[in-house]
Amino acid sequence: MNQISTNNKVKITLKDIARELEVSISTVSKALKNSEEISRDTKEKVQAFAKLYNYKPNNIAISLKNKRTKNIGVVIPDIVHHFFTTVIRGIEKYANARGYNVIVCLSEESFDKEVINMEMLANGSIDGFIMSLSSETQQKGDYNHLKEVTEQGIPVVLFDRITNEIDCDKVVIDDEFGGYMATKTLIEQGRKKIALITTDDYLSVSKGRTLGYKKAMTESGLGVDESRILTLSSMEMDEERIKSFFNTQEVDAVLCVNEIFAVYSMRLAQEKGLRIPEDISFIGFTDGFLSKYAHPSLTVVAQHGEKMGEISAQMLIDKVEGEKEEEDTFQTKILEPTLVVRDSIFH
Amino acid sequence: MNQISTNNKVKITLKDIARELEVSISTVSKALKNSEEISRDTKEKVQAFAKLYNYKPNNIAISLKNKRTKNIGVVIPDIVHHFFTTVIRGIEKYANARGYNVIVCLSEESFDKEVINMEMLANGSIDGFIMSLSSETQQKGDYNHLKEVTEQGIPVVLFDRITNEIDCDKVVIDDEFGGYMATKTLIEQGRKKIALITTDDYLSVSKGRTLGYKKAMTESGLGVDESRILTLSSMEMDEERIKSFFNTQEVDAVLCVNEIFAVYSMRLAQEKGLRIPEDISFIGFTDGFLSKYAHPSLTVVAQHGEKMGEISAQMLIDKVEGEKEEEDTFQTKILEPTLVVRDSIFH
Repeated sequence: MNQISTNNKVKITLKDIARELEVSISTVSKALKNSEEISRDTKEKVQAFAKLYNYKPNNIAISLKNKRTKNIGVVIPDIVHHFFTTVIRGIEKYANARGYNVIVCLSEESFDKEVINMEMLANGSIDGFIMSLSSETQQKGDYNHLKEVTEQGIPVVLFDRITNEIDCDKVVIDDEFGGYMATKTLIEQGRKKIALITTDDYLSVSKGRTLGYKKAMTESGLGVDESRILTLSSMEMDEERIKSFFNTQEVDAVLCVNEIFAVYSMRLAQEKGLRIPEDISFIGFTDGFLSKYAHPSLTVVAQHGEKMGEISAQMLIDKVEGEKEEEDTFQTKILEPTLVVRDSIFH
Repeated sequence: MNQISTNNKVKITLKDIARELEVSISTVSKALKNSEEISRDTKEKVQAFAKLYNYKPNNIAISLKNKRTKNIGVVIPDIVHHFFTTVIRGIEKYANARGYNVIVCLSEESFDKEVINMEMLANGSIDGFIMSLSSETQQKGDYNHLKEVTEQGIPVVLFDRITNEIDCDKVVIDDEFGGYMATKTLIEQGRKKIALITTDDYLSVSKGRTLGYKKAMTESGLGVDESRILTLSSMEMDEERIKSFFNTQEVDAVLCVNEIFAVYSMRLAQEKGLRIPEDISFIGFTDGFLSKYAHPSLTVVAQHGEKMGEISAQMLIDKVEGEKEEEDTFQTKILEPTLVVRDSIFH
């Protein structure tokens, strides 16, 4: 009890409670919501502690009503994938033009970090959130931290990695159509043994892309051969698993849910002496530096990150500056992905 | 005056003052420090405003003494360059092991954003800062926001892009040696017309790398041909200028201060039908995905970002948890860069 005093001026956070009681942030969050997933004993302990130290979900609503910050908080999962940098560029461009500053925080695919970042930003620093969920959050399916914020009237826009459990504005690309279109293009070029490198379904974007791939394979009559689908545990690079996949599979085309997987797969094919696209074709998702400057350059399903960022910022700022009546109407904008054809397929 | 009330509970920031008086954040910061660069009229206005609205440089010192947050604030310039992602990984690794959480904010090369991010984080959210300066900050040479924080006893560790004007712990690689070593390697392989793609000197890292290149060229007797040096205005990609540079220059080797410039230059050479490394060799800085998966793979000067991150976190946490007496001793750690030899040069 050395870090927290009962002094009212010190604001305690979910993280403080979790640390003191040696439970996870998620447990604290659920216990405060009286969730049935949490044992009665734990709930009582957490609630008593929160009461004793005057825990308030947060002070956002109050501070926001007093003062516009003209800051937008952006919380994204990672910075390895180029897609998020393009979204940030779009957010900046639009927000700056309307006099807003953008603060970017990274959850690094961690639920705890997402919660901590949101708590910190919500401490009167920002007028609203633009977010893409961490993979751990999507895996846990725990959205209490988002619910808390939206229930207090703080505008939130979710993009790319979203959840239907939160009522807020959303911007996505049609991932299923992206996967479908790319696979169909490969089939039309005569490819028959088309591999897919994807990730577990808890990542909403991979789920959609995989659905699109399967739809195109089924429609064409080629059918889905599960042995040709490599499912990685996350968007993080896993050289070993990709390498051993290609050692056991003979394929004539590869679709990957990001550009890093695709560019690495091209390298492996080249090392085996295969010619691209004569012997094998490649398509990735995300139109970043890696795709553009790869040799051969990589055909990709462009996600229009900059556009997605601009739209997210517009939706958020309209909400921030909007009339009270508009506050409860939410929309989901679905952008159409496009194929950027480069040298990794025939053209 | 609709956004700021004189209510004491609302904390006003440098940004608020700047907005209200329609001057830059930098001007406000300097005016409050009574800088001679600012006109008397502006200084009086800013100071009167700050007094009226009870501006306090910030509340950090007080809140920190009450409560350790176990959060570290990291402020970095961008997320396009892989180097910063590796530093973050190192910071995370070390900090998590010691029970600290890491909050990352991006200045996106903007002085204003760096100041705003620091103000926000310093609002009791973190125990100390790990930072790499934005290019605009290095260009302006305005470090008042850092001075304010260090003068209040908040530990700061600067890495990579540092300044000697701030007394704090620092971690850098020996950029001059990196540039020297890379250039010398190219010379030893018989290259004579070695180009350098760098950025303006205000970026401390480019300055060092350029010095190293020039030293090696001079020492070898080849001499420095300024027409073979392309100086870009920032680390951002500028395809047009790189393309037109190679259209007017005939060179047999290229050293680039980052990997994106290098990989793009390789593409241009390949499009001209040049063979790498038979006709032309390439070396970049930063050992990221782009270098590794480029075809041919790119030889780079590795900056050991992960190690740099670990050391920065160790220095910071030692300071945060340290005794008062240690607080005024600062050290600068210089890491040695190493050459990661791949297929873009002979080996």
